[in-house]
Amino acid sequence: KALPRSAIELRCQCIGTHSKFIHPKFIENVNLTPSGPHCKNVEVIATLRDGREVCLEPTAPWVKLIIKAILDK
Amino acid sequence: KALPRSAIELRCQCIGTHSKFIHPKFIENVNLTPSGPHCKNVEVIATLRDGREVCLEPTAPWVKLIIKAILDK
Repeated sequence: KALPRSAIELRCQCIGTHSKFIHPKFIENVNLTPSGPHCKNVEVIATLRDGREVCLEPTAPWVKLIIKAILDK
Repeated sequence: KALPRSAIELRCQCIGTHSKFIHPKFIENVNLTPSGPHCKNVEVIATLRDGREVCLEPTAPWVKLIIKAILDK
């Protein structure tokens, strides 16, 4: 079993965030990492259906809406 | 680089959900997987600071609050 990402990565994973809207149907899963000693930023990383990983801006309204949509479905 | 979880797991990951409140300070990260062909349920898996992975109930108010708290911090 793989270690959780956070156990092996000791710094921020995102160097920037994707600014354009991504339709939820292209999103395979979303990983939320609270800020902590490894990184002062909250990090939101979406894995897309094509396997790409993109960092999203946690404060962007569309990002919050997508997360809400996943939870409410 | 590891494959995303969703690319290698072809069925539901959770057989049940943890019902008791978990304080956000014990949470390392949270993974949200929308329902899809691999699993009819929305799955919310929290990785705790001690490395354990626990499934959370996406509809539970405290789970929504924890996710909101992570995003808002």
